[in-house]
Amino acid sequence: MEQIDTLRNGNKIIQATDSFMFGIDAVLLSQFACSGVRADDSCIDLGTGNGIISLLMEKSCRAKAFTGLEIQKKAVELAKRSVELNGLGDRIKIVQGDIKNVSRIFEKHSFNVAVSNPPYALVSQGKQNACDEKTIARHEVLCTLEDVVAAADYLLHTHGKLFMIHRPERLADIFASLAVHKLEPKQLGFIQPFADEAPNLVLIEARKNARPGIKMLPTLIVRKRNENGEIEYTPEFSRINS
Amino acid sequence: MEQIDTLRNGNKIIQATDSFMFGIDAVLLSQFACSGVRADDSCIDLGTGNGIISLLMEKSCRAKAFTGLEIQKKAVELAKRSVELNGLGDRIKIVQGDIKNVSRIFEKHSFNVAVSNPPYALVSQGKQNACDEKTIARHEVLCTLEDVVAAADYLLHTHGKLFMIHRPERLADIFASLAVHKLEPKQLGFIQPFADEAPNLVLIEARKNARPGIKMLPTLIVRKRNENGEIEYTPEFSRINS
Repeated sequence: MEQIDTLRNGNKIIQATDSFMFGIDAVLLSQFACSGVRADDSCIDLGTGNGIISLLMEKSCRAKAFTGLEIQKKAVELAKRSVELNGLGDRIKIVQGDIKNVSRIFEKHSFNVAVSNPPYALVSQGKQNACDEKTIARHEVLCTLEDVVAAADYLLHTHGKLFMIHRPERLADIFASLAVHKLEPKQLGFIQPFADEAPNLVLIEARKNARPGIKMLPTLIVRKRNENGEIEYTPEFSRINS
Repeated sequence: MEQIDTLRNGNKIIQATDSFMFGIDAVLLSQFACSGVRADDSCIDLGTGNGIISLLMEKSCRAKAFTGLEIQKKAVELAKRSVELNGLGDRIKIVQGDIKNVSRIFEKHSFNVAVSNPPYALVSQGKQNACDEKTIARHEVLCTLEDVVAAADYLLHTHGKLFMIHRPERLADIFASLAVHKLEPKQLGFIQPFADEAPNLVLIEARKNARPGIKMLPTLIVRKRNENGEIEYTPEFSRINS
């Protein structure tokens, strides 16, 4: 089933309730990436799904254009229809293709900014049906962390920036892949579900050929209990989510 | 000038007010390391300074013995006198020596646990007098991150554990060094001065030849403002510091 949701920035998004629905990861990544995008940057979203990242970023930063690369046909169609629905055909281009084949689709060093909310889980983690659309979006069936970082390396200018959200459990792999591709980690921020729960998401900015040194961001707490014991968003998360 | 302080666990420590004074780093690292020490483990503290880590850990875990390795003569003397003052000569051994020469001082694979609160700053960071005791404790003049990790690699058993506290800005270097020495990051926890300030310390546990996968710890906030606007320790930090 499909539904049309209106984002806080006014853009509409078509979602497939059984597979391509965005989560807070997309909201966090969009806001994080926007802080580093400059006027006239050209941005690519690696594994764009239903196009949520571009639809969120489009109004909040002065990038020249967005390209969303996605391998799954159903997601590509959803994303294309959302772009049309918002009349954003001149701002956002959706391309069907494999992250592992970027060199056959795009020119080398043709983007300033890459963003990615890739599948988090190793294929070995948990049971999965490799053909299922949700599985492909969540497990590294068609695209690994290394594939994403290698694609960013190929696509980004000399001082281009990669913004990524991932699971902190994978930090060792993330740092190893970035090091191989000379993408230097420059910003790192963790997200916790509650103040007393461990981080379950990490935001990373890496810059090509940059000097070493990481700027840390304050850990963001997403939810808290109010005086009545009800769970609500923290003011800090609400600011991002508005 | 010297002063004798009584630690929360009852042990006394002789501190040199102009150079070797412990901070919250030592408290955090000791508590973190204790959680992973088993009965009869033998522990080594790489760069023990005035011996604070061993004096803190000694009462809180069932390790068989502690060895504190320190290059600076003045710190070694302070540490030895503190050990004597507490009558702990059979529990804690202080050794003067260079972390870069552990292979000439200790047998290979002779410890289960290594702890280290090494100098945080690169030599290039800030002005420094290379002979100054404080500089040696804080900058990588005599010992780099890589020296510490290489020493742990040499000293630890096959499944031995390294517990370290460091600056999050150095995480890329930390992960790179650990990877080279097959010390797999297993736990990671960040410490923030205040809820809205970025982490300035990171606790890491790495295990030799372990399988990949990091367990994250909730970010620890050290201080907060109370209702009167006064700065005080958070309950979470007070629990550790007691």
